[in-house]
Amino acid sequence: MVSTRTDLAMEAFNSAGGGALPGVEVRHWEENGVQVTEVLVTDNEAARQLGKPKGTYLTLESQLLRERDPDARLAVSAMLAEEIDRLLPEGDGRSSVLVVGLGNRSITPDSLGPGVVDRTLVTRHMLGAEYAALSMKSVCAIAPGVLGVTGIESMELVEALVKALKPRAILCVDSLAARDSRRIGATIQLTDTGIQPGAGVGNHRKPLTEQSVGVPVVSVGMPTVIYAATLARDAFAWLSESDGDEAGHEAALADMEKTLLGSELGEMIVTPREIDSLVQDAAGVIASAVNRALQPSLSDAEIMAMMD
Amino acid sequence: MVSTRTDLAMEAFNSAGGGALPGVEVRHWEENGVQVTEVLVTDNEAARQLGKPKGTYLTLESQLLRERDPDARLAVSAMLAEEIDRLLPEGDGRSSVLVVGLGNRSITPDSLGPGVVDRTLVTRHMLGAEYAALSMKSVCAIAPGVLGVTGIESMELVEALVKALKPRAILCVDSLAARDSRRIGATIQLTDTGIQPGAGVGNHRKPLTEQSVGVPVVSVGMPTVIYAATLARDAFAWLSESDGDEAGHEAALADMEKTLLGSELGEMIVTPREIDSLVQDAAGVIASAVNRALQPSLSDAEIMAMMD
Amino acid sequence: MVSTRTDLAMEAFNSAGGGALPGVEVRHWEENGVQVTEVLVTDNEAARQLGKPKGTYLTLESQLLRERDPDARLAVSAMLAEEIDRLLPEGDGRSSVLVVGLGNRSITPDSLGPGVVDRTLVTRHMLGAEYAALSMKSVCAIAPGVLGVTGIESMELVEALVKALKPRAILCVDSLAARDSRRIGATIQLTDTGIQPGAGVGNHRKPLTEQSVGVPVVSVGMPTVIYAATLARDAFAWLSESDGDEAGHEAALADMEKTLLGSELGEMIVTPREIDSLVQDAAGVIASAVNRALQPSLSDAEIMAMMD
Amino acid sequence: MVSTRTDLAMEAFNSAGGGALPGVEVRHWEENGVQVTEVLVTDNEAARQLGKPKGTYLTLESQLLRERDPDARLAVSAMLAEEIDRLLPEGDGRSSVLVVGLGNRSITPDSLGPGVVDRTLVTRHMLGAEYAALSMKSVCAIAPGVLGVTGIESMELVEALVKALKPRAILCVDSLAARDSRRIGATIQLTDTGIQPGAGVGNHRKPLTEQSVGVPVVSVGMPTVIYAATLARDAFAWLSESDGDEAGHEAALADMEKTLLGSELGEMIVTPREIDSLVQDAAGVIASAVNRALQPSLSDAEIMAMMD
Repeated sequence: MVSTRTDLAMEAFNSAGGGALPGVEVRHWEENGVQVTEVLVTDNEAARQLGKPKGTYLTLESQLLRERDPDARLAVSAMLAEEIDRLLPEGDGRSSVLVVGLGNRSITPDSLGPGVVDRTLVTRHMLGAEYAALSMKSVCAIAPGVLGVTGIESMELVEALVKALKPRAILCVDSLAARDSRRIGATIQLTDTGIQPGAGVGNHRKPLTEQSVGVPVVSVGMPTVIYAATLARDAFAWLSESDGDEAGHEAALADMEKTLLGSELGEMIVTPREIDSLVQDAAGVIASAVNRALQPSLSDAEIMAMMD
Repeated sequence: MVSTRTDLAMEAFNSAGGGALPGVEVRHWEENGVQVTEVLVTDNEAARQLGKPKGTYLTLESQLLRERDPDARLAVSAMLAEEIDRLLPEGDGRSSVLVVGLGNRSITPDSLGPGVVDRTLVTRHMLGAEYAALSMKSVCAIAPGVLGVTGIESMELVEALVKALKPRAILCVDSLAARDSRRIGATIQLTDTGIQPGAGVGNHRKPLTEQSVGVPVVSVGMPTVIYAATLARDAFAWLSESDGDEAGHEAALADMEKTLLGSELGEMIVTPREIDSLVQDAAGVIASAVNRALQPSLSDAEIMAMMD
Repeated sequence: MVSTRTDLAMEAFNSAGGGALPGVEVRHWEENGVQVTEVLVTDNEAARQLGKPKGTYLTLESQLLRERDPDARLAVSAMLAEEIDRLLPEGDGRSSVLVVGLGNRSITPDSLGPGVVDRTLVTRHMLGAEYAALSMKSVCAIAPGVLGVTGIESMELVEALVKALKPRAILCVDSLAARDSRRIGATIQLTDTGIQPGAGVGNHRKPLTEQSVGVPVVSVGMPTVIYAATLARDAFAWLSESDGDEAGHEAALADMEKTLLGSELGEMIVTPREIDSLVQDAAGVIASAVNRALQPSLSDAEIMAMMD
Repeated sequence: MVSTRTDLAMEAFNSAGGGALPGVEVRHWEENGVQVTEVLVTDNEAARQLGKPKGTYLTLESQLLRERDPDARLAVSAMLAEEIDRLLPEGDGRSSVLVVGLGNRSITPDSLGPGVVDRTLVTRHMLGAEYAALSMKSVCAIAPGVLGVTGIESMELVEALVKALKPRAILCVDSLAARDSRRIGATIQLTDTGIQPGAGVGNHRKPLTEQSVGVPVVSVGMPTVIYAATLARDAFAWLSESDGDEAGHEAALADMEKTLLGSELGEMIVTPREIDSLVQDAAGVIASAVNRALQPSLSDAEIMAMMD
């Protein structure tokens, strides 16, 4: 049983044993010092087992990213830009890509999405002449959960916008929950499956998928928290393995889950103290990839100058 | 000629001579120490002359409001609540009122709308049971210019939301430009004509009216700035009158408007230094009126407790 | 051995066995639905054992506080005001009390202190006439760790201010770490021992005590986090007890502390997801107590009106 | 009589006639497209007449700066860095320079100082080893008006810090008032005379000068506002000149100053609508000059990397 909560398909796969699983193809490689894992979920039974819908999940991982190493940041950003470009549908240059930054700005570990929106070059409101001169693509962006909308669910707002703006695709960004603390701040997941109910730090209640909004949804996320319940469960599992008394602890574990991990603690989040700068850094890396992917004709310097 | 820019119908009426004008009905009275002016614009020719569409414009004015007098705040808030209730269409208690706070939070004199949204009790997302128990009305709110939305015009976003949410009415709040500095922070205008292009501190490019969105739009505003061009023009007019040489200054005035009031200075705004606290205060008074008008079954204390 | 980290003296006492400990006097009582615990540490050996300096530690605890119950908020605030007044030295009404809000506004669980400073009525800059008319006491406040000071330690800044302003006492507010998740948001500790190095969520490197600054330091704090290392250690202890194999787990526990709780995870914090509103609420309750204690001649309504 | 209010010595000099004035030496030149004006006030009588204390005032002016031209930004930043370095006393590399950002973050045109502090590389808290390796100089920074400090005047706080930290010099940054709207956002003034009471947008009540704090004070400022009274007076003066009836308007002008420019309007400020981005831009240019001047051994890229 995969009871441990994670938004990373690669962790869900590892939790499920990590071995050969029908309906799942996994590839690992290293490129420019970045560990890449691609998980393809190809049938419904595998999707059910992993708790992840059918589709492509790409994970870029670098411990140097968390240490803010400039080379690692550049490498991850460049690779992410390429993969975003690959997953997004071809555009005719007229219909927009809508960047959606999910999450709540006032809850730090949930603020990755708004942070990326702040750093995204938006061009949809510019004049036709400007576009032509610079071969720009049309991009608009929204952070539906930041202060300023209330009584309206984020997904409801995005749906309304999609109907009005008719973008060719949504690129959404969200904070994720992981299982392993080493992945926090060090791992970026890219998927073409959109956002599922219950995922993310904010626990979205409705999906944001091609099925729900009618246009392709590519989503990018980084783990910023572990759920306390996950951490405790893993600690026990580890202990049980280490003293070889797995059966003996079964009862104690079940008991403890009820007692210690009651509703309150179970929903608590575990996060690094430096979460504020960690999220800022990650937003910078991801936004740089988003801008490159969405504006292939502009150089980094041109993008910077236009955002100033 | 009414070249002086103001968003207040009562100032436009005064600028147009203030006397009998066909198609305009004006009434003044005082209530609880608050000066009330009602301007009814009833035909198209009058609307053209005043630069204000046909409809009702109500102005509440109290210098004590600006001095933060608690009694004046309560009196204005209570009267405004009544008038909002009168202008809004009857509701069946199911369809929402959508409160729209126009303006940009990062430009202080333009931040009145977002400030009111922050203080509005929103209920649309609550459960049916909660509504029934408290006889609450459904209210949702959006501040489209602080939304982390970019590349999408505020009015475009509001239109998309109206299509999706089908509210029974919009109540919108905006910062206004006045002609007379004494009205800044001391005057609140309420109208059933919505928002016109070019109005407000942010100079909206598209209308937000019943015609544009299909539901009634009641708007509330307070002047927070004077345009520098308006100030200079008025100063000249005053001088000309005072020395009785109106003709003699005609040429100088025209010349000066070209030179001194070139594009740059003409678009500059004049605002009190304490604009920050002035806008906060006004947002409090207006939001309190909005909450009372939209939740007639709740006491002030209940509203406060629910917003906490 | 008391290796579990907590800033609450009552938890340290419980960890040390909770029984009779020479040099420690503990009293419990309930008042207005609030659980009160007073821990007096009276000799150096007890201080060493508990890891808490000699002095008085008062804890107010109410689960209703966390649920934002209005009556519980009022009860805790009133009791805290009385106790602050009791611990602060008598004033002559001329020399100020300096309220110090420790912590970093941009790290949510560390932002309690700045939040209280924002809500404290400061009067030191007012004119003599205003004081006399209202029988006000002189209060000034600083949040040294908020953005705006860099390269200068918080304690260094406070020391410099104490030399310049010569306040009669410091009342400082800080976010704390607890051991038990139920105390987060539900417990307020008041002590006359000031702030110790290593305490708080921000892990202060220097003390803020009567010894370090030369004036009495009373400090108020509320737990907003548990350290992940603490949580894991307690989980193990609990498990060991429950299966009666304490000795058997000794080795596994020591091993695990090295492995799982390496520097990274060990320093991670566990916090409720709703930490943002929890800290706002707590700042309101504490600030209300601070204002009452420091301005005994003003009513709550007068304090509110002056802060507006 | 120089009744027109400006914080720029060059404008005060022009208002005083702009011709030969005993005790004032003025030089103009152009460099890299930047207009430079140096005003040396060398005796007390000239200081009294200009309303500016004895000392050196350097003004860099470029209309392209306001248009955010990248080359103009680089040119101004490089020249300003050189001049800051020239005015600051030689350091031994051990005692710090204290950067003081005056002004209030929540009043946009008064927020230049805090904006520069946010972008200043502070090093004083780093370890000795880091300094040596990078040949860094010790820099600390404070924005006393955003500090969450209340009841304590900015200048009082700076004085307390100077006593405690014993910096070798203060470099302070403030928003200024100008007379001519074209100077807003386009002009930077550098002076070795510190800050005078009544200067700046925030109207400081106490001086920040070598005399008041005991260490050299170099100050950098940019005009962000014109006082409404200044604007009105200048408009009248212009009109009077243009119709050749200077005497005839004397009475009307005096009368008008009393009426129109009563306390309220007179203290209002005139500012561009885009003041928010204008202040952000200026803070970037000035901070870049400050960082270069204070860290001559670091490249721009190294400074950027360390601030990240």
